[in-house]
Amino acid sequence: MLKIGIIGATGYAGGELVRLLLGHKEAEIVWYGSRSYVDQKYASIYQNMFQIVENTCLDDNMEAMAEQVDVIFTATPQGLCASLVNEDILNKVKIVDLSADFRIKDVKVYEKWYGIEHKSPQYIQEAVYGLCEVNREAVKKARLVANPGCYPTCSFLSVYPLVKEGLIDPNTLIIDAKSGTSGAGRGAKVDNLFCEVNENIKAYGVAGHRHTPEIEEQLSRAAKEPVLINFTPHLVPMQRGILVTAYASLKREISYEEVKAVYDRYYNKETFVRVLEKDVCPQTRWVEGSNFVDVNFKIDPRTRRIVMMGAMDNLVKGAAGQAVQNMNLMFGIEEAEGLRMAPVFP
Amino acid sequence: MLKIGIIGATGYAGGELVRLLLGHKEAEIVWYGSRSYVDQKYASIYQNMFQIVENTCLDDNMEAMAEQVDVIFTATPQGLCASLVNEDILNKVKIVDLSADFRIKDVKVYEKWYGIEHKSPQYIQEAVYGLCEVNREAVKKARLVANPGCYPTCSFLSVYPLVKEGLIDPNTLIIDAKSGTSGAGRGAKVDNLFCEVNENIKAYGVAGHRHTPEIEEQLSRAAKEPVLINFTPHLVPMQRGILVTAYASLKREISYEEVKAVYDRYYNKETFVRVLEKDVCPQTRWVEGSNFVDVNFKIDPRTRRIVMMGAMDNLVKGAAGQAVQNMNLMFGIEEAEGLRMAPVFP
Amino acid sequence: MLKIGIIGATGYAGGELVRLLLGHKEAEIVWYGSRSYVDQKYASIYQNMFQIVENTCLDDNMEAMAEQVDVIFTATPQGLCASLVNEDILNKVKIVDLSADFRIKDVKVYEKWYGIEHKSPQYIQEAVYGLCEVNREAVKKARLVANPGCYPTCSFLSVYPLVKEGLIDPNTLIIDAKSGTSGAGRGAKVDNLFCEVNENIKAYGVAGHRHTPEIEEQLSRAAKEPVLINFTPHLVPMQRGILVTAYASLKREISYEEVKAVYDRYYNKETFVRVLEKDVCPQTRWVEGSNFVDVNFKIDPRTRRIVMMGAMDNLVKGAAGQAVQNMNLMFGIEEAEGLRMAPVFP
Amino acid sequence: MLKIGIIGATGYAGGELVRLLLGHKEAEIVWYGSRSYVDQKYASIYQNMFQIVENTCLDDNMEAMAEQVDVIFTATPQGLCASLVNEDILNKVKIVDLSADFRIKDVKVYEKWYGIEHKSPQYIQEAVYGLCEVNREAVKKARLVANPGCYPTCSFLSVYPLVKEGLIDPNTLIIDAKSGTSGAGRGAKVDNLFCEVNENIKAYGVAGHRHTPEIEEQLSRAAKEPVLINFTPHLVPMQRGILVTAYASLKREISYEEVKAVYDRYYNKETFVRVLEKDVCPQTRWVEGSNFVDVNFKIDPRTRRIVMMGAMDNLVKGAAGQAVQNMNLMFGIEEAEGLRMAPVFP
Repeated sequence: MLKIGIIGATGYAGGELVRLLLGHKEAEIVWYGSRSYVDQKYASIYQNMFQIVENTCLDDNMEAMAEQVDVIFTATPQGLCASLVNEDILNKVKIVDLSADFRIKDVKVYEKWYGIEHKSPQYIQEAVYGLCEVNREAVKKARLVANPGCYPTCSFLSVYPLVKEGLIDPNTLIIDAKSGTSGAGRGAKVDNLFCEVNENIKAYGVAGHRHTPEIEEQLSRAAKEPVLINFTPHLVPMQRGILVTAYASLKREISYEEVKAVYDRYYNKETFVRVLEKDVCPQTRWVEGSNFVDVNFKIDPRTRRIVMMGAMDNLVKGAAGQAVQNMNLMFGIEEAEGLRMAPVFP
Repeated sequence: MLKIGIIGATGYAGGELVRLLLGHKEAEIVWYGSRSYVDQKYASIYQNMFQIVENTCLDDNMEAMAEQVDVIFTATPQGLCASLVNEDILNKVKIVDLSADFRIKDVKVYEKWYGIEHKSPQYIQEAVYGLCEVNREAVKKARLVANPGCYPTCSFLSVYPLVKEGLIDPNTLIIDAKSGTSGAGRGAKVDNLFCEVNENIKAYGVAGHRHTPEIEEQLSRAAKEPVLINFTPHLVPMQRGILVTAYASLKREISYEEVKAVYDRYYNKETFVRVLEKDVCPQTRWVEGSNFVDVNFKIDPRTRRIVMMGAMDNLVKGAAGQAVQNMNLMFGIEEAEGLRMAPVFP
Repeated sequence: MLKIGIIGATGYAGGELVRLLLGHKEAEIVWYGSRSYVDQKYASIYQNMFQIVENTCLDDNMEAMAEQVDVIFTATPQGLCASLVNEDILNKVKIVDLSADFRIKDVKVYEKWYGIEHKSPQYIQEAVYGLCEVNREAVKKARLVANPGCYPTCSFLSVYPLVKEGLIDPNTLIIDAKSGTSGAGRGAKVDNLFCEVNENIKAYGVAGHRHTPEIEEQLSRAAKEPVLINFTPHLVPMQRGILVTAYASLKREISYEEVKAVYDRYYNKETFVRVLEKDVCPQTRWVEGSNFVDVNFKIDPRTRRIVMMGAMDNLVKGAAGQAVQNMNLMFGIEEAEGLRMAPVFP
Repeated sequence: MLKIGIIGATGYAGGELVRLLLGHKEAEIVWYGSRSYVDQKYASIYQNMFQIVENTCLDDNMEAMAEQVDVIFTATPQGLCASLVNEDILNKVKIVDLSADFRIKDVKVYEKWYGIEHKSPQYIQEAVYGLCEVNREAVKKARLVANPGCYPTCSFLSVYPLVKEGLIDPNTLIIDAKSGTSGAGRGAKVDNLFCEVNENIKAYGVAGHRHTPEIEEQLSRAAKEPVLINFTPHLVPMQRGILVTAYASLKREISYEEVKAVYDRYYNKETFVRVLEKDVCPQTRWVEGSNFVDVNFKIDPRTRRIVMMGAMDNLVKGAAGQAVQNMNLMFGIEEAEGLRMAPVFP
């Protein structure tokens, strides 16, 4: 039985980690870290866990935690994990960092887009970018996994096969993404109040969102050339879910069947990526609460572009679910353990 | 492995049965009955089940189904189960009827409130009202279980201990209930369109809702006297969840501790009823996706009334979850099997 | 042209005052008071007013404001208006206070329920409770109007005729109210985040909400006897709207027609109270954005109770609209000026 | 006083026409046409109009209507207006057609994308495309105005100045649009049920939506060259509002100030188009209930593209509001009459 510690257990991603790990046969959470709620019962914050979780919130002392657990999840804003991790800790536990600290290989790029100094750049190269479908073998051997961002996971998986196979010009890629509000976190901000979010849609971070360089780095690797894209996230009045609509120019005329075969080749052995049937558009409601990413595409012969789409639950495959998937790989547990639940509808 | 047949598998309650039974270790759905979608792939209707359910929808031939399954769930409108059931079928399978057909013991009351003729009144007495927390032993022996209505389940469990113990005057009971829209079903009606439901709250069926006699019958049994109540349901712009706010006059002065002890005595061995801590009001979000009913109460010394509250997921404990709980009891399976998932939040 | 000053112009009620007064032919807002946003352009906070309102937010200096305006609206939390008002100010301007400071005649009751000391109790008796439909003549002469609370307005107007006529026993009154989230204000609180409010319904302030004594005081006057009620508010995942469902025992057997005639007698000359047709339940969507209160009732002969219902936009008739209605009366302007807009649907 | 007839008065666009025209000083609706509700009181369908509209619904006899009114609005699906209009009618009344029948000049393109035969192609050339900001003078003289589609209005106004000025390559245009659900109409379809729309976002009509050729025709005129675009609409869980996010390659390096000056030049005399301040993204909540379109842009120097954004209320500027604006122009009434209401928030 793996012993688990969570730093940031009372954020939305932390709460989802708790939900998923409670259904995991080989995991037991022993440390519910939450700086804001130290000494309060976890179930008094997340009342859904009443009579399920009896633990009290502890602080985020990573050193002490490393003595008691096998794996640490950091579900906190950027900067915290990098400021706490050290060799001593990494010798004792494995870490899945849900923040952006170790996702970007070029520390200068990280520091520019995030506007903070990186406190432990020495671990950036070692850290494995935990997109299981792409880096499965490396994840298995990692002691520090950088869990991908929500937008990057959905964006990348939606376009990856075509970029990798060179069927689209990656520098024509435009990714228009839409997210539910849980992605904005549980901080008390006017912008995230019900009356501000409901009955509204807006773009934000236009031409400047921090997930842009993360997506570009992964695309560049797949394309084997530097890729710059337009990425625009939008806030949608719903709780969970990310939908990606991506546009790119095809390098040559190509049939539906040919593109479908490429997607199938990349994903038909993947448990959590579902390539939908012809003309079925991904919808966030069909993946809610699950670790699935649904992808599909539509060729537009008029403009010689292809529209690629992906839908995902931002808190599961976009955060906690992928983190558990990574943990499973890191500890030799079956990859889907704890993640087999069907999507909830309605 | 129990073989399961579902009549009405493409309604919301039917869909939830599928979701729950997919996670049940001893059950296998072999018949997805759906008159509207015969011969279509189930996963083409409920796209969340893509690559999970490969079956095609079949018709609602209960005779044929009885040859192939051990238990039949009827998740259809009132009248259908009563029109299909017969001795031959009941000799072969057990039935959990999610409709109202066998909930009310007095056929005249049923026919008056539902406005239809009952087609098999001979089974009404035999049928067990499947509120597990109250009729557990009878359910275990039943071959026909009348799965309680969503409002009655939440209403009754919220007030039951105080009615049974004679602490409140049951004829002062006023039950003001609020439900999410999935309770209205998946029929294509203007009244249930997004733009009609969203940003709105309304009462409906005032002084005439069909769940009233069902609640009254159960209350009358508990009180050992005839009980008439006011029951008012409301439609709330959310998908799942029922909240009950019930008011009654206390028969005598009583302390918080005394009432709490009564609730605890009735429910502390119950897996699915959670008596919340002092001053914590039940909220539907804390039970969503789970089989829990959260209950609590507040004494108002000024008016000598008590306010009793309950929150529940109408599709789980109010329909499919309770149906599975009943099935488990009927077949000697652990009562919580398939129902242990924690509530989903947010 | 009346010159208007608003203290608290950037809260939701303040914002609605601005919207309504912009459409008022005889009013001009000259002071947008907002302590949080002093020196910021009003339209940078409420972007809907871009190119409509060019003013910059000022502080809440009531003395200075009184020099420049004819009427002051205080759309701020309890305590502020009472701490600012004085004789000098009241000699210069009229005040419509949207807070609770002058609604309750017994200062001890106010201080007990609100938990603060009242800073100018000397004006409590003078202040007129601004429920225009009941106190129209007094409002016309007032220099200080206590604008009623949102719940009290809807609750009281829904039951008033029957209480006044002695047709129901007022001490059996149970008022179960449901409100949209704008009633909770624009403060940055976790409880009001989209992900906490959406897909949820909960009761709050059970047996202790501050609007209870306000409702009771008005009911006691109407009934000419002391009245104690149960009042339970609920939070609904929508922006605007209050629905009241009120229950009381009838003092005698009475027909629909007789009750309807009573409601009509009280309200058929009222512009803003609409008594609906038989069996039509009030719904918040049908009054959204307007100053209407829709009321109706249903007699339950089984329990000898009557269910009274009312629907209203909490920001209009429950706050800003009623405040404008009061202003119109105070200054001899036609009562409906600025308030004639039809409800917005969907 | 203009006499108005509405065909399709009980759809969402028709209902909005009623709301707007009730606030119009020079208009009086005398014919509420609604085939589905003939002989029913209009206010029994749209209860918001109780005690405001006393009329009963009539049929859609355009000949008879033309005898009684000065202007006819057809707020019905494609095909109806074209099947009813004739010379006799056009000699008596002016028509604002909210359907697509007369928007597209090439009847073959219309018939291909809409899949129906055009019943009166002889009026296509005469009909004026009623985008007031572009075709104001032609609208003034028209007897038949084709009211633009919701998506085309918002899409075109967001990009028009840059296309017209040749600053972007129009064939690189990708328009990703998001709409509230009222755009889907009031038909009773499972896809538009609350539980299907809520907590979901999806693309639809990918590479094949009927508004594509309408947008392309207008862009081609502005660009003076044939333009083909990608247009992808999405359904968002909200009632009203369209947000457009459009991407295009800049033809040359250009500064923020230069682009801003172009937008200002085209729109600073327009009442209903607001060019927002730097870095302020359009949001649908800031235009709700009003006739405004808010537009803005962001240059991305990394990719040499520009992101253009627009927000609009689909039922107002996208349908009924623009129709009234057209009517005003056609009859020499002040263009903003009946349309001056500020946006409603929250």
